[in-house]
Amino acid sequence: MPRTKEKLALDSARRMLHHRAYGRVANLLAPLHPAEVAEFLSRVPLDDRRRLVAVIPPARLPAVFAEMPAPAVADTIANLDPAQQAALLAGVTPAHVAAILRALPTEDRDAVLNAMGEGPARTMGELLAWPEGSVGAIMRPAPFALPEDLTVEQAADHLRRAGEDAPLTVYVVDGRRHLVGVLSFRQILIAAPGRRLREVMTPEPIATRPEEPQEEAAALISRYDFIALPVVDEDNRLLAVVAVDDILDMLQDRATEDLYKMAGLDAGDRVFSPVPHSVRLRLPWLLVNLATAVLAASVVRVFQGRIDQYAVLAVLMPIVAGMGGNAATQTLTVIIRGLTLGELTVREGVRAALKESTTNLALGLVLGLFAAGGAWLFFRQPALAGVLGAAMVANMFVAGLSGAAVPLALRALRIDPAMASGVVVTTFTDCCGFGVFLGLATVFSRYLV
Amino acid sequence: MPRTKEKLALDSARRMLHHRAYGRVANLLAPLHPAEVAEFLSRVPLDDRRRLVAVIPPARLPAVFAEMPAPAVADTIANLDPAQQAALLAGVTPAHVAAILRALPTEDRDAVLNAMGEGPARTMGELLAWPEGSVGAIMRPAPFALPEDLTVEQAADHLRRAGEDAPLTVYVVDGRRHLVGVLSFRQILIAAPGRRLREVMTPEPIATRPEEPQEEAAALISRYDFIALPVVDEDNRLLAVVAVDDILDMLQDRATEDLYKMAGLDAGDRVFSPVPHSVRLRLPWLLVNLATAVLAASVVRVFQGRIDQYAVLAVLMPIVAGMGGNAATQTLTVIIRGLTLGELTVREGVRAALKESTTNLALGLVLGLFAAGGAWLFFRQPALAGVLGAAMVANMFVAGLSGAAVPLALRALRIDPAMASGVVVTTFTDCCGFGVFLGLATVFSRYLV
Repeated sequence: MPRTKEKLALDSARRMLHHRAYGRVANLLAPLHPAEVAEFLSRVPLDDRRRLVAVIPPARLPAVFAEMPAPAVADTIANLDPAQQAALLAGVTPAHVAAILRALPTEDRDAVLNAMGEGPARTMGELLAWPEGSVGAIMRPAPFALPEDLTVEQAADHLRRAGEDAPLTVYVVDGRRHLVGVLSFRQILIAAPGRRLREVMTPEPIATRPEEPQEEAAALISRYDFIALPVVDEDNRLLAVVAVDDILDMLQDRATEDLYKMAGLDAGDRVFSPVPHSVRLRLPWLLVNLATAVLAASVVRVFQGRIDQYAVLAVLMPIVAGMGGNAATQTLTVIIRGLTLGELTVREGVRAALKESTTNLALGLVLGLFAAGGAWLFFRQPALAGVLGAAMVANMFVAGLSGAAVPLALRALRIDPAMASGVVVTTFTDCCGFGVFLGLATVFSRYLV
Repeated sequence: MPRTKEKLALDSARRMLHHRAYGRVANLLAPLHPAEVAEFLSRVPLDDRRRLVAVIPPARLPAVFAEMPAPAVADTIANLDPAQQAALLAGVTPAHVAAILRALPTEDRDAVLNAMGEGPARTMGELLAWPEGSVGAIMRPAPFALPEDLTVEQAADHLRRAGEDAPLTVYVVDGRRHLVGVLSFRQILIAAPGRRLREVMTPEPIATRPEEPQEEAAALISRYDFIALPVVDEDNRLLAVVAVDDILDMLQDRATEDLYKMAGLDAGDRVFSPVPHSVRLRLPWLLVNLATAVLAASVVRVFQGRIDQYAVLAVLMPIVAGMGGNAATQTLTVIIRGLTLGELTVREGVRAALKESTTNLALGLVLGLFAAGGAWLFFRQPALAGVLGAAMVANMFVAGLSGAAVPLALRALRIDPAMASGVVVTTFTDCCGFGVFLGLATVFSRYLV
């Protein structure tokens, strides 16, 4: 592996940074790949990062920014004036600039757009008009296209002239820039030089539209093993291209998002985010949870008299609520992931809810038996054991039903199920767990000791 | 969009399937892209899928299987005899066959290997020797390589002869098959025909090793925007290649896995898995959770006398435990995702644990204040409110500390933190929540009404 040299340089750079020797850090980073510099910069505190950006040769920065996550670039340049920001972004690809501008506050964004040249500003304006999460927001405009009546030899000449700017895939268009075919370099190299592109190209290429969701583009790229996917307008005119590496980045971000949403976390909340930042981002969701916990507590409050009589109920009730919560999380995860991956549609919802509630009912019977058996062995009270077992079965059933129904209902209402389902469903299982267990204990209280 | 025709065919196929007209379904699928057939097959019940596979022309199946998830292919062919299985897999790429064989029971796998020719069986044996999750398990062996002293013109001839089998990236090797460079078709097309490959190639290419984790390969591919990554042995000899589309599939699977593991789910447990299958897969984890719930209940049991005296404690105690669990899940998610994405290493663990416990302490102070204020307003008992607030602060701190320390410790012990952390940490926050709240209530019991 030839990477040892780079690792040593990065280690030294880290040490030098510790001593605030920014110039020396910049020297150590100079021979490295822009992607390595980008990773280094992304992981140092913002203040150090800004000082480093000030001493790295400006010509090198666009390549580095191209490899940094857009929000990190936005943070880095946020304190510069609009003209400086526009200059730094000039060498970055339009799609990435759009992502960086999206991460800036609106007024700053407009200032940078004004500081750009008229042409780039118009391109940016068009990209920024597409909503976040749409293909339009990550597409790369103005892809390399050649007219269909060119010969293979002429096409090869064009590509040679493009040199390092030549793309991986060549799109073929007719006289009115309608997308009619796609050509790989392989096809060009293999074909007889005198043939026309329309004869050697792959016709009717699969394409997407800028308003489609990015997941749709990811699915097409992954299904057909593409390295790029063309983007066309409603008249099938070639607008832009979505590259597989942008899709890779998007998928990694999206996987984090799904996990994060289920825990009520914001995507900007990372391991080494500053404490006040994390506190601010996590507090709202925890406050919502506090409210739902109070709701569950008020169910217990209804039965406070019963607990006053039989304190042992307070020992067992968290078991019923907790197991319902665990089972509900399993059902939720299966349903939400199924919706995200397109394995499940809302139309199939009744079937899914039926399957999940049957599964959890069966699980509840097994777990209820275990729990009742344990309680009987320990407390020697058949009625208490029976109430525990029955409440467990009921709550597991509710967990399966609500764990499936809530995310499906939210999806049908066009609310992101990953975001809101967890709180709603565990509130259900907490309230139902406490309610059914303490309720049954009340009904059968004359058999309790 | 030229996809309407395909959509209509798929809709008709779905209706025909409903009427069990398997032959007509196969006819409708015949003109479609193998990836579309694969997706259709993956979504129909196993029994229908097997009947369809029996009527689809065998020559077409390898291309379809290549696009289906490996476990789905394994299910589909599980009922056939080894010779049939080996014949069906003959046209599928080695890396995908390895994944399919991994999804079969061990004895079936050996039977298929025996039914294969000697050459393919040896290749398979080598791929299967690499552990799941390693680069070796998804790499494509025997990539296209050319000797470094070939001229550009000779290289182009070689590629033309390879025709449709030509790769996207050409590796350049020396006389002993050491990887010395990489060449894109673009570079070949652009270069002067008489130059040697060693003069026009990109030297010292970035490569990976078969024993590296797949995430590492994904990070390299994503960082350097590669479409393929070469795999070399310890002597830098070219072994295989990892393709970006395999990485795309892997990332999508991995995102599901992470979510699933945190909920204690098996990857084979999908929305429409049969009920007994789901029950069997979910039961073990729920039993572990039942055991930990009993542990938490036994903490409450210690203080049963106190609850006997003040039943109101049973009303409030779930709030303390529940909020700790929510906060712990947030910390866990941040830490586990950080570990997965490589943003966090075990060495930085102390700093991460410090950050998370500080964050949760701050959150605990805010939430504790809210909870105490609410309790005071409702119950008008200052001591009870104080005990609730203090227990909340303590438990949130424990949530931050254990939410960070447990996954980091598991990772240091080489146990997958996504799998086991959740159970351990919520047991901590449940026991600590009940213990501290009821313990403080005992200490200050003379102030309680």
